Amino acid sequence: MEYSTTKNMVISELEAVLSAVDEAAVEEFIAILEQAKRVFVTGAGRSELSLLAFVKRLIHMGIHATYAGAVNAHPITENDLLIIGSCSGETAVPVAVARTAKKYNAKIAYIGSNMNSVAAEIADMTIYIPHCVKLGNKTETSSQQPMGSLFEQSLLLFLDIAACMMIRRNSIDEAELRRNHANLE
Amino acid sequence: MEYSTTKNMVISELEAVLSAVDEAAVEEFIAILEQAKRVFVTGAGRSELSLLAFVKRLIHMGIHATYAGAVNAHPITENDLLIIGSCSGETAVPVAVARTAKKYNAKIAYIGSNMNSVAAEIADMTIYIPHCVKLGNKTETSSQQPMGSLFEQSLLLFLDIAACMMIRRNSIDEAELRRNHANLE
Amino acid sequence: MEYSTTKNMVISELEAVLSAVDEAAVEEFIAILEQAKRVFVTGAGRSELSLLAFVKRLIHMGIHATYAGAVNAHPITENDLLIIGSCSGETAVPVAVARTAKKYNAKIAYIGSNMNSVAAEIADMTIYIPHCVKLGNKTETSSQQPMGSLFEQSLLLFLDIAACMMIRRNSIDEAELRRNHANLE
Amino acid sequence: MEYSTTKNMVISELEAVLSAVDEAAVEEFIAILEQAKRVFVTGAGRSELSLLAFVKRLIHMGIHATYAGAVNAHPITENDLLIIGSCSGETAVPVAVARTAKKYNAKIAYIGSNMNSVAAEIADMTIYIPHCVKLGNKTETSSQQPMGSLFEQSLLLFLDIAACMMIRRNSIDEAELRRNHANLE
Repeated sequence: MEYSTTKNMVISELEAVLSAVDEAAVEEFIAILEQAKRVFVTGAGRSELSLLAFVKRLIHMGIHATYAGAVNAHPITENDLLIIGSCSGETAVPVAVARTAKKYNAKIAYIGSNMNSVAAEIADMTIYIPHCVKLGNKTETSSQQPMGSLFEQSLLLFLDIAACMMIRRNSIDEAELRRNHANLE
Repeated sequence: MEYSTTKNMVISELEAVLSAVDEAAVEEFIAILEQAKRVFVTGAGRSELSLLAFVKRLIHMGIHATYAGAVNAHPITENDLLIIGSCSGETAVPVAVARTAKKYNAKIAYIGSNMNSVAAEIADMTIYIPHCVKLGNKTETSSQQPMGSLFEQSLLLFLDIAACMMIRRNSIDEAELRRNHANLE
Repeated sequence: MEYSTTKNMVISELEAVLSAVDEAAVEEFIAILEQAKRVFVTGAGRSELSLLAFVKRLIHMGIHATYAGAVNAHPITENDLLIIGSCSGETAVPVAVARTAKKYNAKIAYIGSNMNSVAAEIADMTIYIPHCVKLGNKTETSSQQPMGSLFEQSLLLFLDIAACMMIRRNSIDEAELRRNHANLE
Repeated sequence: MEYSTTKNMVISELEAVLSAVDEAAVEEFIAILEQAKRVFVTGAGRSELSLLAFVKRLIHMGIHATYAGAVNAHPITENDLLIIGSCSGETAVPVAVARTAKKYNAKIAYIGSNMNSVAAEIADMTIYIPHCVKLGNKTETSSQQPMGSLFEQSLLLFLDIAACMMIRRNSIDEAELRRNHANLE
């Protein structure tokens, strides 16, 4: 299999999946983010990595963000938001974290592909990212990529798009983002 | 700024950047990967997260992979490959790691945007991912996304594309990938 | 409060707690460790850090070890051991991990202070580390240190003592330990 | 080798090493900690784990603390303190981090066993933790424990003793510590 063919397939799948995200839900997500005092994220495996990339960007934007289990995490409170990113919405550890956050009355946003999951049920709001794709006139097909790749990539890109929208709307300039960037790397 | 406009911009930038990757270099990268006994990665910030996602995928593929500084990392040897992912190729910690790996005669692959960097100079092979983009007939422009977003996204997608190619060529099926998937999450 | 007074208090508490560990249970723990194909650990907060230090030492000893949630973790199987370290034995995430490990028929060792906990119940074997201390002729008192400090310190020292015993018994020399030490730090 | 013999050896070594720490340096360390706006730590391997345990305790005490390379780390400034914990004082990554912190005029405290090291030279203040031990009337001997165990244990205990002193002096009660404790574990 050639590089260019594979690259085209990946880009097409991402285009299809990201186009399926509901714009009204994106606005709701940005609103809940901007109201939160602190933002926590939870997820497993490669999905967690996509969420961690968002944590870094939020910190650049001056928003207090961390992940469940971080060495330097503060306790979650009713003023905070927990984002759970999980394709199935049933992964054991993130679901356990979400249940705990619920006890402390934190707001919960679920981003994933299973709106009948425990995560979707616990959540105050949901973002649906399909992990099947509709290409052109073809009916829905599952991804040609291995395992959860398409979901994990879409999760990163969706969150980066949301961050981009917030940065533009709040007129945060590059210099300000850089001032909040870790310098001990 | 609207979701769909931003999504289109991100997809266009990714398409432009990933199309600029040299196919011969991709083949060389896959060859060096398949020869390595163990694969190590090093990077900083969000770039490191993209590399960690690749580590997870390599493990699913039955390849021994880890990151510099992992709690459970083994020592690097002359039979191993270190992948350094860094837009500037000058970030202090990954460069220090690469210099150390060099002392142990490990192979080094640099993926980044600066072919005049220390990382590029140390490396046995390089993959150039431009972080400026050429859209249609327009001349090169820098990304409309904040900071290093475009590089970090491209790094993840490039590595996922390479993994996808390797999985197809080696006829690794989904069941085998899942057998190597962590189950304590 | 002076340094020397505090230091004496800490050392006395550690001496008291570590002396209360049952020698037969230590032998059982070493036996189960040596039979395991791979060793996984799970814990929360500072207890997890003590367990991670043990993972590093086991790797030096040539034993395959990792922690639940590691980027480069393999799936757990019936040939593996999960060590859960938790003072209360009720912490949500480690307990969720232990339940999952149980489904895969992994062996489970619980190290903690609560023998009536979920963790103790799930476990195949337990190591009791009291978190109250008996100093001299005085009756049991709770630790003068804040929060779980005494447990977390005792967990690290107990595991280091077990590692030390295994290294001596198996005549693993320093050079061999160093050969397995990460060199990209 | 028996458990009780090994336990006695470990406790004796810790007692000897921790007794050798200079009380005036401890007071200086506490003073520099209390003046810092934010505390960063850097170290490698098991030493880093001991430092991370201190980060957690500082957060409980209401002090802003993190580690170099944390997903959610802020930039270091001239108002901040970097603690470098390293037996040799020459480990590549922490030394690179310390050099960078120096450029931003952060204060640097070195805790280690080598007062002729790069880390000691860069530092504004040092805490000397010997990794040879003097037991009773015997002359100094190196540790009977493998590799850097004695240093890593001493680093954890030293930092916990310092935290204990600060908590007593500032009359921080257990309830306040618990209010700052992560609750998503």
